[in-house]
Amino acid sequence: MIGRLNHVAIAVPDLEAAADQYRTALGANVGAPQDEPDHGVTVIFIDLPNTKIELLYPLGENSPIQGFLDKNPSGGIHHVCYEVDDILAARDQLQATGARVLGTGEPKIGAHGKPVLFLHPKDFNGCLVELEQV
Amino acid sequence: MIGRLNHVAIAVPDLEAAADQYRTALGANVGAPQDEPDHGVTVIFIDLPNTKIELLYPLGENSPIQGFLDKNPSGGIHHVCYEVDDILAARDQLQATGARVLGTGEPKIGAHGKPVLFLHPKDFNGCLVELEQV
Repeated sequence: MIGRLNHVAIAVPDLEAAADQYRTALGANVGAPQDEPDHGVTVIFIDLPNTKIELLYPLGENSPIQGFLDKNPSGGIHHVCYEVDDILAARDQLQATGARVLGTGEPKIGAHGKPVLFLHPKDFNGCLVELEQV
Repeated sequence: MIGRLNHVAIAVPDLEAAADQYRTALGANVGAPQDEPDHGVTVIFIDLPNTKIELLYPLGENSPIQGFLDKNPSGGIHHVCYEVDDILAARDQLQATGARVLGTGEPKIGAHGKPVLFLHPKDFNGCLVELEQV
């Protein structure tokens, strides 16, 4: 069911410093910051030859990653995103195995303008999993 | 400097259950367990179309991931691995920016039979980074 790894997201305490480190010390192709007010984050995508790294920084109050940064002040790997062809079919199939979907269970539109869902980390080895329909 | 994302590693408390979940619920292409006594882990690679997921489980006493699982009993995302062309040049370039290399600073042979190094997570947004020479 799952296809490509769309991205790995890393929550960072200083977005500009993290972007600069990936650009200069690690020599990667770093994009521009994008505010995603519906998700409470500012993101920067880093293009690797086969996938992307998404740097995440809180935007506004009640950002869903503020709690993560409070617990992990240096930052940390926040989630992985797998691509699926049909997000509703994937959701239904996973829920049938007992996996929990976060929020209302209905897809939202993600940073790439495509439907996304998040799965409960306790059901996936402590790993927050995002599904994105491509 | 960094090239492809070689893999994302997820430490899991039950290797067989995690492999079965990726195989059946997530429909992925899951390999066989490989013991890596030099690294204190048993690994299973999951082939995605563009990269790999590495499931990690402790092997033997003093496994370097036992402490991580003690802190994260459900498991969690443990590290990301970036490919580099020349691991010694990459190390020297990163050390010149102040980044710390774990262990002796000399590459070890990793799960793919290639030289690897780990960088200190505090220097990379709380994210443990492995470099693998390809």
